[in-house]
Formats: sequence, C-alpha cells, structure tokens
Amino acid sequence: MQFDLTKEFIDQIIIALEKEDSKFIADAILPLHPADIAEILELIDLKGAQFLYRLLDEELASEVLVEIEEDTRDQFLASFSSEEIADSVNKMDADDATDIIQDLPEEVQEQVLNVLKDNDQSSDISMLMNYDENSAGGIMDVDFVAANWNWTVKDALNKLREQVENVDQIYTIYVVDSTKKFKGILSLKRFLYAKDDTLIKDIYRKDSISVLDIEEAESVASKMEKYDLVVIPVLSEDKKLLGRITIDDALDVIKEEAEKDYQMASGISEKVESSDSLFVISRARLPWLLIGLLGGILGAYVIGFFEEHLRENAVMASFIPLILAMGGNVGVQSSAIIVQSLANNTLNYESIFKRLLKELTVALFNGFICAIIALIFCWITRSDFALALTIGVSLVAVFTYAGLFGTFVPLILNKYKIDPALATGPFITTTNDIIGLLIYFLIGMALYF
Amino acid sequence: MQFDLTKEFIDQIIIALEKEDSKFIADAILPLHPADIAEILELIDLKGAQFLYRLLDEELASEVLVEIEEDTRDQFLASFSSEEIADSVNKMDADDATDIIQDLPEEVQEQVLNVLKDNDQSSDISMLMNYDENSAGGIMDVDFVAANWNWTVKDALNKLREQVENVDQIYTIYVVDSTKKFKGILSLKRFLYAKDDTLIKDIYRKDSISVLDIEEAESVASKMEKYDLVVIPVLSEDKKLLGRITIDDALDVIKEEAEKDYQMASGISEKVESSDSLFVISRARLPWLLIGLLGGILGAYVIGFFEEHLRENAVMASFIPLILAMGGNVGVQSSAIIVQSLANNTLNYESIFKRLLKELTVALFNGFICAIIALIFCWITRSDFALALTIGVSLVAVFTYAGLFGTFVPLILNKYKIDPALATGPFITTTNDIIGLLIYFLIGMALYF
Repeated sequence: MQFDLTKEFIDQIIIALEKEDSKFIADAILPLHPADIAEILELIDLKGAQFLYRLLDEELASEVLVEIEEDTRDQFLASFSSEEIADSVNKMDADDATDIIQDLPEEVQEQVLNVLKDNDQSSDISMLMNYDENSAGGIMDVDFVAANWNWTVKDALNKLREQVENVDQIYTIYVVDSTKKFKGILSLKRFLYAKDDTLIKDIYRKDSISVLDIEEAESVASKMEKYDLVVIPVLSEDKKLLGRITIDDALDVIKEEAEKDYQMASGISEKVESSDSLFVISRARLPWLLIGLLGGILGAYVIGFFEEHLRENAVMASFIPLILAMGGNVGVQSSAIIVQSLANNTLNYESIFKRLLKELTVALFNGFICAIIALIFCWITRSDFALALTIGVSLVAVFTYAGLFGTFVPLILNKYKIDPALATGPFITTTNDIIGLLIYFLIGMALYF
Repeated sequence: MQFDLTKEFIDQIIIALEKEDSKFIADAILPLHPADIAEILELIDLKGAQFLYRLLDEELASEVLVEIEEDTRDQFLASFSSEEIADSVNKMDADDATDIIQDLPEEVQEQVLNVLKDNDQSSDISMLMNYDENSAGGIMDVDFVAANWNWTVKDALNKLREQVENVDQIYTIYVVDSTKKFKGILSLKRFLYAKDDTLIKDIYRKDSISVLDIEEAESVASKMEKYDLVVIPVLSEDKKLLGRITIDDALDVIKEEAEKDYQMASGISEKVESSDSLFVISRARLPWLLIGLLGGILGAYVIGFFEEHLRENAVMASFIPLILAMGGNVGVQSSAIIVQSLANNTLNYESIFKRLLKELTVALFNGFICAIIALIFCWITRSDFALALTIGVSLVAVFTYAGLFGTFVPLILNKYKIDPALATGPFITTTNDIIGLLIYFLIGMALYF
C-alpha cells in the first residue's frame, strides 16, 4: 500500500499505545508494508514498540524484524527470549536470519542456533555464519533458481516449480552442469519463448559476470554498479554456484561506505544518527575533538616560541586565523578529491608523482590569486608593505604545503591498505594548523620581525 | 566476459593506437563488455578514443556511448557530426538517447532531433525531453511489459511476445486496464505457473508501490531503497502507466547526491574528479577559498580591535589556533550529523527546539571535558590561572555556539528547501572562526586583560 508516514499518524499511534488500544493499532498498522511498520517501530519508544510488535502475526513480525535498523533491532531483541528470537528468525530467508543472529550476543547466538538446529535452513545459516559480514558470502542470498544445462525447457519448467517457491523474486535463471558448476545464465525472455524440447544448453548465455564468495562486498557493489547488474551470482573457488547477491544488499554497502567517508571527513568516529542517545553521540565526537585539542595545544607552543616578537608586532597575530583557515581549506579540498577518486576507482593509472605535480600547479595558481588579494588588502589597510608581503608569501607557502600534504597522505594510506578517508577531516586540519603556523612565523622572522 | 583492466593492457592499447594497429586493437577490445570499453576510452587520449570508437560496429558503439562518463562523452561527441550522433543514438533505448541528446549544445540538439524524426522512438524521446533531468520522468525507461487485466494467461503469453522484444530485462509484468490505467503487478512466478485460461485480473497483485512522473528522482531513489525494490512503475497524474525506473538509474541519483554532499563539506563547488583538467579543478576550489579569505580578513579586523591588549598579553595569541580549531570541529560535526540524518530521512519527527537542546547537552558535555583538560594544561605550563580560566570558559562558550549554529543552519536551510549540505564545510567554519574569535577576546576582556 502507498503510505506516507505523517507526524499525526505517529501521534495517534502513540496515544493508542498509551491506552493499550490494540484494536485501533492493529487496524492502522497491519495493512502497511513491513518497511513502514519498521519505520514506525523506530520512531516510538521501546516499550511501545514491543507492545506493537506482539500484535503482528508470525510472518509479518519476521518481515518487519528484517527491515528494522540494526541499532534499534539490537535493543529490541534484548528483551526477547532465545526461543522467541528463534521463532521470528525461523520464517526468514537464510541470509536475513544470519544477519540477525550474527548481531546477537554470543551466548544468545548459541541458544538460538540450538533451537533452530532442526530447521531446514540451519545448514545454510551455519554456512553463512562462516563468512565475514563484508564479503560477498556475507551478503549473499542462498535461495536462487538454477537449471541443469542438460534439461529441456519443458523439464526445467516442471523442475523449477519447487525452487521458485522459496525465491521472492526470480530475475534470472542460473545454469549449472551436473556437478553444480556455474555455466551461465538463462534470461527469462528466452526461456519464456523457447520451444518445449529445446535444451537449456542451446539457449543459455555463457561468460556471465560473477563474483567469488570471498570477494569484498565493496568490490561486488562496484562491479554491479559498473555493469548495471541487478543480481550477480556468487561462486566458490572451484566455480560451484553458492548464491546470489541482489542490488539492494549491494546498495546498503555502497551507502554505508559513502556515509563512513563523510563522517570521517566531519570528524565523527563511529556511525551515529541524530536520533542516537546523547552518550553515543558525545562518544563518537569526542576522539576527534581531543585530537583537535592536542593540535591546539601544540599550536600554542609554536606561537609561544615567537611570543617576544608578537609583543612588538601584535599585528602578526591578527592574520593567524587567515593562514589557518586557508591551510585547512586547501588540505581538506585536495584530500577530498583524492578520497573520492579512490572510492570511484578513477585514478588507477597516474603515478603519485604526477598527481602531486598536478596538485602543486593547482595550489600555486589558487595560492597566487588569494595571496595577491590578501597582499593588496593588507597593504592598503595597514600601509605596511613588509607585513603584506609576509602574508602573501605565507599564503603561497601554506597552499603549497597543504595541497601536497592533503594529496600525499590519502594516497599513501591507500597504498598500505588503510582507509584513505582517515586522512580527511580533523587529522589533516590539525597537522596543517601546526605546520601552517610554523611556516607563517618563520616567514615572518625572515621578512618582518 | 570477466575482465580486469590492468595498466599493462592499457599500455598495450596505447602503443597499438600510436601504430594505428587496428587489428590488434579490435581483437583486444571487441570481446569486452561495453562498460569495460567505455572505461578504456576514458583512460586514453581523445584522438586515440575516437580512433578506437570507429572500430566498433554500430550496436556496440551505441552501447559504449551510453556507458561513457558524461564529461568525457561531451568532449568526445563534440568532434562528431549531427548525423553521426543521430546514428549512434538511433540504436539506444529512448531514455539513454534522451540523456545524451539533452547534454548536447542546443543547435546540435535540434539537428540531431531533426535527423531522428522518422525514428519510431522519436515521440518517446520528445516526451522524455520535457521532463526535468532530476524527476522520475527524467530517469524513467519507457520500455516495459504490460498486460491488460482482461487477458487470460494464454493471451498474455502471446501478446507479450512483441513487447518483450524491446525490453532488456523483464523483472515484472505490469497490469493495466483498457484505458492504460495502472492496476498492479503480476509476478513472473505466478504468471509462469498459472493455468492458461486464468484471467490476469484474478492473479495480479494490486496496491503496488509506484511513483508519479513529476516526483523528484531523489525521492524515487529513497522509496526504492526503503522498500527494497529493483524496479518501480512511473504513473502520470491520472494514473496512466508511463514507464519504469530500474534501481541502477536510481542508484546513480543516490550516489551523486552523496558525492555532492561530501564535496560541499570539503569546500568544492562543482563536481570534479582528480582526472579533470587543472583549470576545472582550480575553478571548483577557488570560490570556497575566497570565502575563507574573506573570513580570514574579517578575523584580522576582529583581532585588530584587541591589538593593544595583545601587545601587553601576547600569550593570548598563542591560544587562537586552539579556539578556532575546536569551534570548527564542533561546527562541522554537528552540521554533518544533521545533513546526514536529513539525507536519510531519519529526523522527521523531532522539533528544531528539541534537536537544539540535544546538541546543547552534547556540546556542554564534550566542551567541559576539553575545557578542563585545556585549563589544567594551561595552568600547569603557564602558572597563570586567569589565563587558564579564560581558555576554559572560552572553550565551553565556543562549543556551545558552534554546536547550536551547526545544528540550526542546516535545519533552517532544509526548511526553506535549500540544500542543507551548503551549511557544512567552509561556510560554517568561516563563520565559526569570526564568532569564535569575538567570544574568545570578549571573555579575555572580562577575565584576563
């Protein structure tokens, strides 16, 4: 059902929950899509959410549970017994069940797996539990439709009926040989309009794009994006077909990665949302603030060295913010371009040296423009050419340093397989502050003091 | 074909291009996926790319053209005649053709449309040209499979054969009434296993999720993400079925949006990649640098007011970087959380007041921790309690101001339908610098000078 969640609707639900008016709630909630119900659960308090959840029938409850955001779900399941969790998980696809079980505390995991051990999916779940959450195996779905290439179209139509029962959405039929080795895909279009006695072997398409189970989820996502794929088969090292990954699961990976980069650039050290608790938000923000604090203290030391000179030429202090702001901006800009190009795989074939040379040119070009404006302004308002020159030269120097440093650090981090996004944000700004101050005062010593 | 693009491969192609060795190039390139060929074209120079492109047959050439990145494609097509462009576009799906035509200079657009006017897709193209590029209509595909709900399964199987010809991938069958009004969807699963004389009306699913043609592409993308949809139907205001949007097109919108936010936060004013020309990169970066410059100059004015005091107490200057860095970090952190929550629709139901109160608590908490550390450090190393107190109090004040301002600005921008990401990055940092300095020196006046 098309449904737009409004504040009024939520308010009505909250009032009904206070009155424990089960009938009103059930009437309002049950016709909704599981994703909408999940959204409502995230917006009301835990007690209300649990009351509401128990009004859902088993199947709807398990669909809703899959859709709830991870943090809310963990809180939510904490109040459930292992048997209740097992019941909810029982109805799910093996991949969704695994995701939920993996997030449980270890002793609960064992209890849930124990209850589930007679379930027909338990072997799939144990298989999936072995994969890293960020590997292709960790995000794949083990329900798919596969036809043996020796079958005829008619055979396939009959034999696939049972497989189709377990699969939400078909997309494509995979073709395997008798040892389950992946051979290629059969488009529904060709399948639908082939003659009954045609062999699958004669109409399937080989050379289809696939991924290995141990491949990183990010690389799967970028492959799907590049080739505009909606679903991709997952193979074991010996080419056996293990499962499939649909674009919505890959999309989650792409989005999470982009959000992580953004948060790192903004100085937030763990995934937070504005709806998280005060404690979580403070904790995520404090580490970078402490780094900034350390940087500020080191900056105070640097300026301390020149305190005597400042006493005589206090005007030099006035331009500290200008130097710092420009160094910070240039550093963040240059590192952001590199981080984004790395994320998009658009800078594979240029050497680090060539890239630094390019950044140097940009830094000098923009640096000269800003330096000339600052110099003229400073000369006119302060009638002090030596000061103006100091500011101008410092700006060019800071631009050059900050641009090169901002380019170099993410490239080096990436080379040693460290997330280059670490280089952006407070780390680069803090280092830039200290070096920028040194540059400024040393040039001041040479030209002004 | 599975293919990993290596530097060696590109080098071989470049050498072959220099020798104009068409045979070697054709053998190496023609078996590749169009997306891989497009990637190669982006990595070699324009002349080489044009030579290589002319080796492709018409169909492959048009598939490659769709895959090439927009900037490269514009440069590339600039050297083609309108007839050549029309030939390439002729083979494409109407939506891809429209995308390419829309990016051409206006007079070329007209010429190309003129050549295409006898093409069977020309009416689709003119219809699509009317939509904003960022609306559902602007990203929809007009080729889809639709069945009349009065047909039987057998009718449908015959009648859909022709429609299927034009559609790359089916995904789902749409159900319409005799006036083309959208009724719902028919899953392939049910269609495949229904009896021949069953009416479509009896097996289709109504209440399917759809979007309007004028809806924003971003809202389409978030709907598809929320409901885990791979394809979504697009309707006119009077519920007629116009087309469908597949997740790969929606994905492009999601990614572009995330990248734009990231670049804004990093002070880059237009979409750039590290492979762009020096001029483009400099131009994208200069506007924010000029804002930073203006901020720095204003900052110099602020400090200028207190120059006499600084002459006597030069030590106050030492802590300018600390105050600025902390204000900047807090501001960016708080605005980033809001921008990201807005992008993910996770803060619909809290009032601005409640949100500011939350930010205030976080700012005070983190502010006190940092202030106490700074105060103790300052007291011990400088043995000057008045100075230490000034720094500590200033930090708490700056945290409070920066946190509230960083929260408030994106919320207000969003309320007035301006992209909240504008609030992040240099804009907030620059304002914070100036206000932070004022706060610091005013507290200094009260407690220290």
